[in-house]
Amino acid sequence: MAVYTDVSDEALNAFIAGYEIGNVVSFKGIAEGVENSNYLLKTTAGTYILTLYEKRVDANDLPFFLGLMEHLAARGLSCPLPLKSAAGEMIGTLAGRPAAIITFLEGIWHRHPSAIHTGALGEALARFHLAGQDFALTRKNALGPQGWRPLFEKSLAQADTVAPGLAAEIEADLAIFEASWPSHLPAGVIHADLFPDNVFFLGDTLSGLIDFYFACNDFLAYDLGICLNSWCFEDDGSYNIEKGRAMLTAYDRVRPLSEAEWQALPLLCRGSSLRFLLTRLYDWLNVPKGALVRPKDPLEYLRRLQFHRSIKSAADYGVTLAKAVSA
Amino acid sequence: MAVYTDVSDEALNAFIAGYEIGNVVSFKGIAEGVENSNYLLKTTAGTYILTLYEKRVDANDLPFFLGLMEHLAARGLSCPLPLKSAAGEMIGTLAGRPAAIITFLEGIWHRHPSAIHTGALGEALARFHLAGQDFALTRKNALGPQGWRPLFEKSLAQADTVAPGLAAEIEADLAIFEASWPSHLPAGVIHADLFPDNVFFLGDTLSGLIDFYFACNDFLAYDLGICLNSWCFEDDGSYNIEKGRAMLTAYDRVRPLSEAEWQALPLLCRGSSLRFLLTRLYDWLNVPKGALVRPKDPLEYLRRLQFHRSIKSAADYGVTLAKAVSA
Repeated sequence: MAVYTDVSDEALNAFIAGYEIGNVVSFKGIAEGVENSNYLLKTTAGTYILTLYEKRVDANDLPFFLGLMEHLAARGLSCPLPLKSAAGEMIGTLAGRPAAIITFLEGIWHRHPSAIHTGALGEALARFHLAGQDFALTRKNALGPQGWRPLFEKSLAQADTVAPGLAAEIEADLAIFEASWPSHLPAGVIHADLFPDNVFFLGDTLSGLIDFYFACNDFLAYDLGICLNSWCFEDDGSYNIEKGRAMLTAYDRVRPLSEAEWQALPLLCRGSSLRFLLTRLYDWLNVPKGALVRPKDPLEYLRRLQFHRSIKSAADYGVTLAKAVSA
Repeated sequence: MAVYTDVSDEALNAFIAGYEIGNVVSFKGIAEGVENSNYLLKTTAGTYILTLYEKRVDANDLPFFLGLMEHLAARGLSCPLPLKSAAGEMIGTLAGRPAAIITFLEGIWHRHPSAIHTGALGEALARFHLAGQDFALTRKNALGPQGWRPLFEKSLAQADTVAPGLAAEIEADLAIFEASWPSHLPAGVIHADLFPDNVFFLGDTLSGLIDFYFACNDFLAYDLGICLNSWCFEDDGSYNIEKGRAMLTAYDRVRPLSEAEWQALPLLCRGSSLRFLLTRLYDWLNVPKGALVRPKDPLEYLRRLQFHRSIKSAADYGVTLAKAVSA
């Protein structure tokens, strides 16, 4: 829930005048996204999302994020398309901040996705990975394995106040990842944050992906691990094998995973658990004074991490494909 | 900025099924209204606002608020119209709260209204007062003169921490209002909170009034005092005589004010300043722990109050009508 910056009607009208989208009909701040200020903008030409990029997003990354959306949309993926101003620019300035107008995507997100939805997500993720293969720009994954230890060190002193023994448990896994993280898997542009609230459906049909502001270059199967974690566990923390099987097999149908990827999957899932455990732990220990939003429980991701430790092969995720089971 | 209650897609779909508005196409929390949770709802039939009434609104008042909107819309006033469910109800239950779906109103509100806008507002306010004359339900003004002393007593002990001498100044005015508040002016349904953010425009044309959740029965000219205060002062605290003249004369053209109303206007404006001074003072001294929203400056309304004390007749507001000047 976030609208950090107030936009006057005069400033808005001046900004809109730079685009060929008619006149403003309505303009409402929406409670979506934590990093930026988002407005639902209706003009005589259509409905759009207007985003003001706040401090937490590096303006230097905007050409990557917005360029990626344009690239994906051009390849038929359903995602927001950044508009170009009459001057040909995707990034303008409004209320002193970088700002962009993107197309509005219909659909709602599912709080409790079913195996139908996780299957649709698996397929869409594979299509996203394929469509991103020829995108020219690159962006390092700041929250990838190299970033975990420095992130952990910020929380180290207080980690055990959240759960006794947590620091040692993280330290042990960090050492394992540093020793055995794979180095030669298929890589490319990943979404890196494709949680259910970033995937819209109309009924059971997936209508689009949003929020590319964590996208970066990394192993494609790592992205799948992020999705497995955020889509295939129940509220009580248990893994739902039907949902996992649907996601993984649907993904594999569109972009077949190599044997090496299947083999690495449990470790990638475990690493992606650590990544969200670490950011949530940091947020938990550093709630800004006056914050309205309750931070998310880091221990949810500790339990996921522990689950993936117990996985022997992709068969334990419910996959019956020969190459996955033998891997 | 407020979305207090999360609504699952399952609960939403079940709720929408009770109305004849097709299927959900999109559903976004909007940063509007402080008392309730508001969502922008798009269905295959159109665009709506879905409101969940949170604790701060008394559910017993909902038939008055929603009935009023229906009454006004039926008389041609542009305001949101509450939908009736297939069962004929305007108030349902969603996520454990009373909930209603109202039509979506186009337009944006002006942060810096001009005299064109204050004129349009004066006319709309008069039309609203006329249209409300035959509304059957009534609701007491809990924030009217009888409510001021109890409200003041809650802040009394700390008032002087906000400005030295504030308590004594409020006390003196309260005594004056208790002795000389008029008792026989034209009364009816008033909006009671018609600040610029509750009035939408398309360009310079007023497109509608929203947020009737403070509406109640009181003197009509008192409502005009609230609008004069919230529309006709500049950011530096000075009264803009052009804006005031435009509002008052436009109002008078649609619903001519009596000589008694013109005469009472300075006192009504002064009283309405005290009403907002008192609620802002209370909010200022009682910011909830963890609140994201900065409370509004109460002293802004102390300066308005002091300005109205200096007014000798409506002529000082810029009105040149004979009956106003002589009053």
